[in-house]
Amino acid sequence: LAVEDVGRLNEYLDPMHSADIADLLEQVSAPERQQILSLVPGQIDGEVLSELDEGIREEVIATLAPEALAEAVRDLDTDDVVDLVEFLGEDRQEAILGALDAPDRVAVQMALSYPEYSAGRLMQREFVVAPGDWTVGQAIDFLRVAEDLPEQFYHVILVDPAMRPVAYVTLGRLLASRRDVRLGSITEETFRTIAVDLPEKDVAYAFNQYHLISAPVVDDSGRLVGVITIDDAMIVLEEEAEEDILRLAGVSDESSISDGVADTVRSRLPWLMVNLATAIVASMVISLFEASLAELVALAVLMPIIASMGGNAGTQSLTVAVRALATKDLTRSNLMRVIRREGAVGLVHGLVFAVVMSAIELVWFGNAALAGVIAMAMVINLFIAGLSGILVPVTLDRLKLDPALASGTFVTTVTDVVGFFAFLGLATLVLL
Amino acid sequence: LAVEDVGRLNEYLDPMHSADIADLLEQVSAPERQQILSLVPGQIDGEVLSELDEGIREEVIATLAPEALAEAVRDLDTDDVVDLVEFLGEDRQEAILGALDAPDRVAVQMALSYPEYSAGRLMQREFVVAPGDWTVGQAIDFLRVAEDLPEQFYHVILVDPAMRPVAYVTLGRLLASRRDVRLGSITEETFRTIAVDLPEKDVAYAFNQYHLISAPVVDDSGRLVGVITIDDAMIVLEEEAEEDILRLAGVSDESSISDGVADTVRSRLPWLMVNLATAIVASMVISLFEASLAELVALAVLMPIIASMGGNAGTQSLTVAVRALATKDLTRSNLMRVIRREGAVGLVHGLVFAVVMSAIELVWFGNAALAGVIAMAMVINLFIAGLSGILVPVTLDRLKLDPALASGTFVTTVTDVVGFFAFLGLATLVLL
Repeated sequence: LAVEDVGRLNEYLDPMHSADIADLLEQVSAPERQQILSLVPGQIDGEVLSELDEGIREEVIATLAPEALAEAVRDLDTDDVVDLVEFLGEDRQEAILGALDAPDRVAVQMALSYPEYSAGRLMQREFVVAPGDWTVGQAIDFLRVAEDLPEQFYHVILVDPAMRPVAYVTLGRLLASRRDVRLGSITEETFRTIAVDLPEKDVAYAFNQYHLISAPVVDDSGRLVGVITIDDAMIVLEEEAEEDILRLAGVSDESSISDGVADTVRSRLPWLMVNLATAIVASMVISLFEASLAELVALAVLMPIIASMGGNAGTQSLTVAVRALATKDLTRSNLMRVIRREGAVGLVHGLVFAVVMSAIELVWFGNAALAGVIAMAMVINLFIAGLSGILVPVTLDRLKLDPALASGTFVTTVTDVVGFFAFLGLATLVLL
Repeated sequence: LAVEDVGRLNEYLDPMHSADIADLLEQVSAPERQQILSLVPGQIDGEVLSELDEGIREEVIATLAPEALAEAVRDLDTDDVVDLVEFLGEDRQEAILGALDAPDRVAVQMALSYPEYSAGRLMQREFVVAPGDWTVGQAIDFLRVAEDLPEQFYHVILVDPAMRPVAYVTLGRLLASRRDVRLGSITEETFRTIAVDLPEKDVAYAFNQYHLISAPVVDDSGRLVGVITIDDAMIVLEEEAEEDILRLAGVSDESSISDGVADTVRSRLPWLMVNLATAIVASMVISLFEASLAELVALAVLMPIIASMGGNAGTQSLTVAVRALATKDLTRSNLMRVIRREGAVGLVHGLVFAVVMSAIELVWFGNAALAGVIAMAMVINLFIAGLSGILVPVTLDRLKLDPALASGTFVTTVTDVVGFFAFLGLATLVLL
């Protein structure tokens, strides 16, 4: 990327989609980013800001002149403005809100009054409604003269006199029907409303489960307050999966590939600290058997295998459980069956690897009693790994804790402790 | 769930969305499922079949009478039929195809001629086109008399005389414009076409990146052959994230929470076998130092801590890299910077835990030389963990292998081997 003169840079950026400009800003180095911003601030419009990762976005907002920023946000839909300002500091938030027209400002402030990560934060307040007794012709005539239609809309929402949505008509049906047809006769069966305080992950679930394109959002009294469209739900769905992936690996879900060293350490060190604590617990179990280890050094060579197999089997089981909980595929009606299955799978794995591993031990060390010990320890640890892989996340979920965040630590601690204790304990009993 | 009589069961299922009926069938036990299918086969329509997990779906299809099956698929859009039959055995596939009307059958067969997991398999062949020189009024009149409009559509696609899409008009713009306006003057800037052989994960990326609602699919010569809509892209996006999560944990991505014991063992045993092999490699490294272990048993107590910290730090680094590769956030332009960052983060982590762990060693064993050894081993292993966490997935990606599938094994093998070798090797040099 040669940042030589304004003209060539504009020529390069002009045909690019705002999402690609945002990716470019994220992927260049910080000095290059500053250079681009100072040369062609006009390229950074509201759309580009919306697409940026949070960390980079704050950096860019801090660089832009107040007028450029005001200009940038004025063209955005209110839901995008909310997304832009909700995690900014108070003065920066007020500077942006001040740049908006009064109605938009009120809309954004109202949205910010809803809980974080709720439908109220996600919805746009631009929507198209019609009384249920209108005809197709009336609706089309209304749309033709309406001034401020949303940039994207997929349904005309039918409301009662109290502004409660009762049904909707797709634009396709509207276009395909004669002018004298009543809207009430061409509504969709898929209609469902979303409560304004529903958590956004449940909104994403509803869109995914019921193949919704857009859905009206209603307040406590059932009145229409906004609309959520599938593109917003798709973003939430991706963020939720991303969050689970990162949390399962012990990385803070606010981390990004464009973070610097300090932010990256901040997003990973806490989990490594927890892991150190659990690793020390496992080592304390080992230290109980120092005498046995001194006597038979083969125990030290083989014990990591038992722990490693347990850790991996437990991780398999818990990952499946965490995702099934997230996608609501694990419920009361199949929980007992899944628990029984994980126990049975753990036993099968245990028996398979007991045979394999005791054969390997015989070839390697030729100690028949030790082969028996490693076989027993393998069965015990893989059985416990399977069970804890399902029981730990389910318990955390019941306690309203995120199973993706903490299950890994608990399960590997269990499999390390059980693995070392079973192997070294049995060895001490049988061999020494 | 009391499956007592047909009437009550129908009453229970009638108001349910097909996606919820499918979830119910997945969550009950196999005998309960058979009972439901035999009591109320009429509830299992095409929509329900579309929503079922593949394993359960095959079981249900095998149970349904041929006529019931034919009835069920006849109402589906062709893209849903493709999704239903593409992984079925040949006779079952032909039975279903035979139930379709000739034009639908040809459409499904054409779709099946495209590569698996390509845009051609994902698209529907129902779409709405108009010549670019039509007016809004002409388009609306055409839609009012058209016989077989797609169930859902969001754009009128403008085509040239050779059926090459050149632009599209949203239905909202169409409805909001006067009858004499030319379609060519109200087209959308966001227009982009998708090649029929594009892999579906790239289709999902394009929808997510550019906020598309629907996109025309074109063949080699640029002719329109179908349309992909956002709901299909959303499903792919979710499947891709799910696949990464499961593969990172060493679970086959075809596994499901409703699998039985045998299928579950089949989806997990291969990775456990690989893990056993790598654990044995690590144990062989340990066995090089049997003499040192026999002399100083504290080494056996402490060595799992070094390996565990390396494994976890490596997993953090590789998970971030795997996801950044999947979302195209890690590219040539930032690769070197990310590699330097991971190295630096590894060094910082190494120094932090060197201090913490040598302090713990001093309190626990009071051996100053051993404290120095554990500190050095920690720095080495966490540095290598950070670097291998980025280099292994990037290398696999360059070799066109899925980094989510194999990175974990490689990285933890590296951190185990390096961790044991550094710690036990340094201890042997310094202490003995």
